[in-house]
Amino acid sequence: MKNWFIIRMERIGLDRFMTKLELAKGFRYQGMYCGIKKKKKDLAFIVSEKPCHYAGVFTKNLVKAAPVQWNMQRLQEPTIKAVVVNSGNANACTGQRGFDDTASMAELTAKSLGCKKEEILVASTGVIGAYLPMPQIRSGIEAISLQLGQSEQDFNNCAEAILTTDTFTKTISRTIVINQQSVTITGMAKGSGMIHPNMGTMLSFIMTDALIDQPTLQELLLQSTQDSYNMISVDGDTSTNDMVLVLANGASQQLITKGEANYSLFKQAFDQVNLELAKLIIKDGEGATKFLEVTVNQVKTKEDARKMAHALITSNLVKTAFFGEDANWGRVLCALGYSQADFEVDQVDLFYISAVGKVQLLKNGMPCDFSEQQAAAILKQKEIKVLVECHQGEYSATGYGCDLSYEYVKINGEYRT
Amino acid sequence: MKNWFIIRMERIGLDRFMTKLELAKGFRYQGMYCGIKKKKKDLAFIVSEKPCHYAGVFTKNLVKAAPVQWNMQRLQEPTIKAVVVNSGNANACTGQRGFDDTASMAELTAKSLGCKKEEILVASTGVIGAYLPMPQIRSGIEAISLQLGQSEQDFNNCAEAILTTDTFTKTISRTIVINQQSVTITGMAKGSGMIHPNMGTMLSFIMTDALIDQPTLQELLLQSTQDSYNMISVDGDTSTNDMVLVLANGASQQLITKGEANYSLFKQAFDQVNLELAKLIIKDGEGATKFLEVTVNQVKTKEDARKMAHALITSNLVKTAFFGEDANWGRVLCALGYSQADFEVDQVDLFYISAVGKVQLLKNGMPCDFSEQQAAAILKQKEIKVLVECHQGEYSATGYGCDLSYEYVKINGEYRT
Repeated sequence: MKNWFIIRMERIGLDRFMTKLELAKGFRYQGMYCGIKKKKKDLAFIVSEKPCHYAGVFTKNLVKAAPVQWNMQRLQEPTIKAVVVNSGNANACTGQRGFDDTASMAELTAKSLGCKKEEILVASTGVIGAYLPMPQIRSGIEAISLQLGQSEQDFNNCAEAILTTDTFTKTISRTIVINQQSVTITGMAKGSGMIHPNMGTMLSFIMTDALIDQPTLQELLLQSTQDSYNMISVDGDTSTNDMVLVLANGASQQLITKGEANYSLFKQAFDQVNLELAKLIIKDGEGATKFLEVTVNQVKTKEDARKMAHALITSNLVKTAFFGEDANWGRVLCALGYSQADFEVDQVDLFYISAVGKVQLLKNGMPCDFSEQQAAAILKQKEIKVLVECHQGEYSATGYGCDLSYEYVKINGEYRT
Repeated sequence: MKNWFIIRMERIGLDRFMTKLELAKGFRYQGMYCGIKKKKKDLAFIVSEKPCHYAGVFTKNLVKAAPVQWNMQRLQEPTIKAVVVNSGNANACTGQRGFDDTASMAELTAKSLGCKKEEILVASTGVIGAYLPMPQIRSGIEAISLQLGQSEQDFNNCAEAILTTDTFTKTISRTIVINQQSVTITGMAKGSGMIHPNMGTMLSFIMTDALIDQPTLQELLLQSTQDSYNMISVDGDTSTNDMVLVLANGASQQLITKGEANYSLFKQAFDQVNLELAKLIIKDGEGATKFLEVTVNQVKTKEDARKMAHALITSNLVKTAFFGEDANWGRVLCALGYSQADFEVDQVDLFYISAVGKVQLLKNGMPCDFSEQQAAAILKQKEIKVLVECHQGEYSATGYGCDLSYEYVKINGEYRT
């Protein structure tokens, strides 16, 4: 994994994400190979030492994978104990047998940890429509439950075992201080393809040692996903397996209560964790060579601003123009125009910004006399900001996307075969 | 043009479209090079010998090119005389100067034909955001007006001059017989990229010698676009310049009246012309190697059926799977699931059909034990039908799309540069 990670980081400039990871107290992790994939790690455990609160958001796709259905039912449990994840097989479109397999995964995990199966959450990711190889998963669960640990290596094994076509692990943490005690939020995610979340993303797991009740946790999560996972797109396809799970075990003994100062401190850190994980998913978008951050400002309503940002990050023509490093603002304006947002075209200013400079392409909806040479230099960079100033309201939205490359077509033309 | 045409036809199997073209009576045509493109034809005239009725539908993109705005205003005129078209430059996002240029084009054309500028429709297609080279257009209009003709060659020159990245001309005709007199509908279109029409397509011009009043013509056009241009997608991007114009000059002296037998005969032929042009646009989709016809049957509402068909023809993952000739039914079911249509997943049957056979991939929402070898043989073909049987209502919809190839990325990464 390490080589890929470094190659990839160099490719899209991820160096600044290599900060020290803090692990929330009271959780144990492991990831290993059990025989679902050809040879990469494919089974992961996230275990809370004590029963913990859980909040979750799930794909709005009508076709919901078995583990998504299982976890939605678990929202009624007072507490849960662990999450078991397999990669390489999505256990989606597998009917009753698929659901029974998910229940078996929960039951085997519960048995290995000494709790009830209703206290286990399950996640699966990979190919749609194949049955899980249960004998391998059975032996895997028995083996992994004996190797749980709290080291960064244990955590990284876990973060690696949830990946599919991802080329690097996606992890992040934030620590805040409440009453002189540290409270940590640690997250891991996987993404890569079929990424256009609507209420959750492919898979994202957030662990915190904060003491926080379930309704508050669920509310925080719902708010947080709006501006993070729900504002990213790799390819416009909403998966059958998207989910974000948050586990809060209270191990820090610091209570987070709505309306108090602690709450906004926690909320800020929690939002950062979700946003950074969402961005990491984009940076590892299938075939992506450029990271696009699109901000639309001064729009009449929040919903209009979201629609405009979404249109830009999902337009194949805008995405291929960035791949071609072409300052094709016409496609940008065209996509804004069909976004179904309510705005006046003749008030729109457009800028491209990267590490080497800023260029204005449109003023009042009309082309500026910009230097193609300067624009080309800006577009050569790996991270590009697209700024749309609308001058007609007070709402903003930011979306995150990537370019559309030959490699995307290659990866997805050849995925199953 | 001819070489490309043949190469392209071989590539996506267009031989059956090489039928004899009938030209509606009373129209004259020409196409030529005037200096907008590097060397291909870029200026076209469609002229009715007598004033004719006109109906039009236009892009719903908020960003409307100057000629779209001009033609929308012309809907109030009792009759029009001609359409002038330039390719190579869309005259979109060009502000007041762009609108003035469109008015000048109309005025120059009117002068050359001896009519009023309000009787002239204008269409432009090509790069967004550049001003028209008016001196070249002025000389071009003077020259072309002296070369109008009624031969198939004159018509084909015209159909060629409206193209941009298209690789072949798109023309079709249907002749019906009313009172022992032939009534002809002749159409030409261009497409290729930025094709995901909402109310019109890039450019499509239909000429008929039927005698038909404007309200009836407009109603026929609105209905006809619903199941033709509005059900195709190359890349999900709705252009700023989409329009379909219909000219009816009455030269056949046969009256088409709503409620009479003639009407349904005419409507059927008119719908066929629009549908075939829409399909030809897809067959020439940028980088397309396969033509996909997606039919969704037995759905609760027409709107749900449309949503499901649309989701399949716009999903990048579905499109790349067809490019890769991969029977990845999971992506099909996933796209249906996020289409926002109301349907029961566990009643869905899925089939792939091509010239060499038919294979069932899903029964009641669950995978069938199909032969991968047979599926591969079916997917090797250039025209593939995707059939979704929902068994839960009486509505159907058919959408037309193409695969997503390396060439699409290449064409659009390098378009402007």
